[in-house]
Amino acid sequence: MSEQHWILTAHCPSQLGTVDAVTGLLYQQGQYITDLQSFDDRLHQHFFIRAQFRPENEFDEQAFRDAFQVRAEKYGMEWTLSPSDLKYKVVIMVSKFDHCLNDLLYRYRTGQLPIEIPAIISNHPDLKALADWHNIPYYHLPITAETKAQQEADVWKIICDSQADLVVLARYMQVLSEDMCAKLSGRAINIHHSLLPGFKGARPYHQAYEKGVKLVGATAHYVNTDLDEGPIITQGIEPVDHTYYPEDLTAKGRDIECVTLARAVRYHIERRLFLHSKRCIVFADSQ
Amino acid sequence: MSEQHWILTAHCPSQLGTVDAVTGLLYQQGQYITDLQSFDDRLHQHFFIRAQFRPENEFDEQAFRDAFQVRAEKYGMEWTLSPSDLKYKVVIMVSKFDHCLNDLLYRYRTGQLPIEIPAIISNHPDLKALADWHNIPYYHLPITAETKAQQEADVWKIICDSQADLVVLARYMQVLSEDMCAKLSGRAINIHHSLLPGFKGARPYHQAYEKGVKLVGATAHYVNTDLDEGPIITQGIEPVDHTYYPEDLTAKGRDIECVTLARAVRYHIERRLFLHSKRCIVFADSQ
Amino acid sequence: MSEQHWILTAHCPSQLGTVDAVTGLLYQQGQYITDLQSFDDRLHQHFFIRAQFRPENEFDEQAFRDAFQVRAEKYGMEWTLSPSDLKYKVVIMVSKFDHCLNDLLYRYRTGQLPIEIPAIISNHPDLKALADWHNIPYYHLPITAETKAQQEADVWKIICDSQADLVVLARYMQVLSEDMCAKLSGRAINIHHSLLPGFKGARPYHQAYEKGVKLVGATAHYVNTDLDEGPIITQGIEPVDHTYYPEDLTAKGRDIECVTLARAVRYHIERRLFLHSKRCIVFADSQ
Amino acid sequence: MSEQHWILTAHCPSQLGTVDAVTGLLYQQGQYITDLQSFDDRLHQHFFIRAQFRPENEFDEQAFRDAFQVRAEKYGMEWTLSPSDLKYKVVIMVSKFDHCLNDLLYRYRTGQLPIEIPAIISNHPDLKALADWHNIPYYHLPITAETKAQQEADVWKIICDSQADLVVLARYMQVLSEDMCAKLSGRAINIHHSLLPGFKGARPYHQAYEKGVKLVGATAHYVNTDLDEGPIITQGIEPVDHTYYPEDLTAKGRDIECVTLARAVRYHIERRLFLHSKRCIVFADSQ
Repeated sequence: MSEQHWILTAHCPSQLGTVDAVTGLLYQQGQYITDLQSFDDRLHQHFFIRAQFRPENEFDEQAFRDAFQVRAEKYGMEWTLSPSDLKYKVVIMVSKFDHCLNDLLYRYRTGQLPIEIPAIISNHPDLKALADWHNIPYYHLPITAETKAQQEADVWKIICDSQADLVVLARYMQVLSEDMCAKLSGRAINIHHSLLPGFKGARPYHQAYEKGVKLVGATAHYVNTDLDEGPIITQGIEPVDHTYYPEDLTAKGRDIECVTLARAVRYHIERRLFLHSKRCIVFADSQ
Repeated sequence: MSEQHWILTAHCPSQLGTVDAVTGLLYQQGQYITDLQSFDDRLHQHFFIRAQFRPENEFDEQAFRDAFQVRAEKYGMEWTLSPSDLKYKVVIMVSKFDHCLNDLLYRYRTGQLPIEIPAIISNHPDLKALADWHNIPYYHLPITAETKAQQEADVWKIICDSQADLVVLARYMQVLSEDMCAKLSGRAINIHHSLLPGFKGARPYHQAYEKGVKLVGATAHYVNTDLDEGPIITQGIEPVDHTYYPEDLTAKGRDIECVTLARAVRYHIERRLFLHSKRCIVFADSQ
Repeated sequence: MSEQHWILTAHCPSQLGTVDAVTGLLYQQGQYITDLQSFDDRLHQHFFIRAQFRPENEFDEQAFRDAFQVRAEKYGMEWTLSPSDLKYKVVIMVSKFDHCLNDLLYRYRTGQLPIEIPAIISNHPDLKALADWHNIPYYHLPITAETKAQQEADVWKIICDSQADLVVLARYMQVLSEDMCAKLSGRAINIHHSLLPGFKGARPYHQAYEKGVKLVGATAHYVNTDLDEGPIITQGIEPVDHTYYPEDLTAKGRDIECVTLARAVRYHIERRLFLHSKRCIVFADSQ
Repeated sequence: MSEQHWILTAHCPSQLGTVDAVTGLLYQQGQYITDLQSFDDRLHQHFFIRAQFRPENEFDEQAFRDAFQVRAEKYGMEWTLSPSDLKYKVVIMVSKFDHCLNDLLYRYRTGQLPIEIPAIISNHPDLKALADWHNIPYYHLPITAETKAQQEADVWKIICDSQADLVVLARYMQVLSEDMCAKLSGRAINIHHSLLPGFKGARPYHQAYEKGVKLVGATAHYVNTDLDEGPIITQGIEPVDHTYYPEDLTAKGRDIECVTLARAVRYHIERRLFLHSKRCIVFADSQ
């Protein structure tokens, strides 16, 4: 019995037989399902499934792919198959705030987030020491209105050269161009420091203070071309009261941002996320 | 030693001596402070205080008022003094949804909310049986675009005749006129079924569904002339995920709305709330 | 296409093919799966599955049962099949505290909890009016050390006569005999007003006060012969602080108890719960 | 107007005049109260107060102390006075798990926790690199049953030599001797990875798994001679379900432990904690 686990994800229009298309084949081929989640979206008439499995005997990946493709075509499925221990290459982008970066690096170096980090990119030099200590290349790419196009080209080159699977905006305080957003669609995660859709845009903690809210939160979402409007992956929250000045909300928010962003990254690398319409299906898990 | 407790609230511009203005007099007059909360708002330069006390010996209310008024004038304080067991007269307005009404009535009849309810007003007849069982007069005042002015006049008459201290909009699905809002300013509490400022206006649970939020909540706020923009008193929240259809969000939200609204009403009748600028200072408590 | 949904639950020792045993047959027989949850317990080597489905055409229940029984025998499955709108008969037992009863009755009369309540049993007469208003028979069965055996016999008769599927101890302040617990095993739910396993036994809020805990909670669990040790179904919690006296913890706890117990009852009637070893598998849902 | 803030804490038996004893003198001496919290414990008949203030003009600390001592003697008060920016010397003790240490060091190096860390002590060598990167002396003091007395003597010497104000057990997996506990009474904080009083002792996450709890948490408490029974400072919690194996509970618990311990340390250094009887009074704040 193999210890290597695999993850199969698929989605397609709702129709009879979608579950069996996956589970039936896994059974026929002697794959032992260790975790199975599915969702049939009644309103959008779309079906999503994620199966984690381990072969009972040897596993012929190509044969499995060929067999599954037949079924996928029948049902109009888009699908992915990959080993569960596949290490995603994650490029992290930051500015000056280091709490999210520090948190991600801690989870990285302790193996809680089993990823590779080929590059940290920043428009400021401040966080280089932290990158150095983790032996991660740090690219300081300053940006101004005039240099924005060139800077983004440089960023894009690093992302391409490092073959990044995912880009994480860990409090990167620059608005990406529409072109850049489009190129990163579905593989860039941002942390916004408010409970979206409340308090979009700049200085959300100050907005929250003015409004006198009694809860403060953070939202991890996929980047799309609509600022702070990308599909929501996960949100965190804590209660506050009138005694919180904007700097207190900011401090309280830091812990929420760290945990929320780390959770979103983990969901992504564990292939628990499906983008559909403007929403994000999340097959959450233990943790 | 008296068992009768009193509640003193005061607020004024920030300045040296504001705490002592309250605590010093209470001490001099032999009042035993059982609970004291204060807040000096550094950004708005305003001071708020609430003291609950019981007289060690007899209590001459008028003498206390006269003595405190001297201090209040010195500091420019607005203040209130009342026995802690004062029963507020609360008029409840509803439409067809009964969960908030049912919850308030339960707390009323068991004494958890020590209030009087002189009237329940509705634009629908549906909830009369519930009011009847609690022996509370139920006023069915239907409303149309044409009759709105007259209906509000009728509502206002009931509020006045019953000498209501507070009006609670317990899922009353009509927008009050600007005039009505102004008249009720500072003594009407609404429950909105979203985490304001997200999802203002109609059908917030449907908006939340479309947006794919991962948290759903409710907001109790004072009514003002700006729809769903009144000062926030308290908010409640629960996690949700992609499997929640709008009707599931609605069902989940019901429990949150009940608890959130009841808490706001309790805060008000315990004189824990101060309106200032667009924000609400909340001296919350055990419970 | 039928609108009638069915629920199939099954569990058996872990082995290859357990998922397919369910999903394969459903597919072959033209059943459309609307919700599917499964769990393969790696440590206890046991598999659990719950499928909600609706027939695409007519549904021959007996034929389906016969076909599934063949598979069930092969895998050693225990299983149940029932229409999703099956109305459980729920007997509620109470003493003097009415908050949980009031909450359950509210959900009952509004259809949120689609159950029948053939009887409310109490060792006190206090809550009869509440039962009467809902047109539910109220049995006042006082209990003393001497009459306990007879009282339980009377209780048991009511349970049997009403063909109760579930007994809910909604703050019933009597310890059931070991014999009674055994008879009710797997179909009686109790609400305990603490976060078990902390503060078992009497007066848990007072114990919590003495201990100075900063969180207070409630636990809904199946009744078994070990007092307050039955498998945990769900737990609720709220933050507290040093200002909470025992009566404040009690008041705070009431809302938690209501929501927690109602959730546990709903899980049970929706067939989301599996008892295994000392633990309870909970296929939770939207809500 | 001075920018230097001071913190005054005091407690004494409940009696008339305790608030005024503090607030009256502050007013007379021209001290501007920026934050005031008090609690009169009705059941234990004890009074607690914490005032943060800044002098309007120059501040003669000794004169203030002399004046306050007169009042303190009258009321039987124990009290402390210190500048709000006083840097506590905090010795951290760890074993092999580094998540709490990493979190504390992050808050330390970014100034979120304004403390000095004169020493990190461990019974293992593993975490030396982390200490080195922060330029903090790391003392590797292995321990066995035979060497326990000597090891504790060495630990004690480091604590004394560094003039530590506080000792933080950041997942130090050794039980301190009764003597050591006594010496550290009131100035040592431990993080226990369960919701005390549930799951005392070893392997609490495994105990929680066996019990099938639906919430997992952590408890920061003062160390006393009764293992895992010291006064609770603060607790954190997250929901879990049946899919969490012990290692998943452990992973989930890590984030809770970090935040909970850091909060307890901050409360301590901000002089927000009072030990009384077996309970801990916590004047919590914004954050």
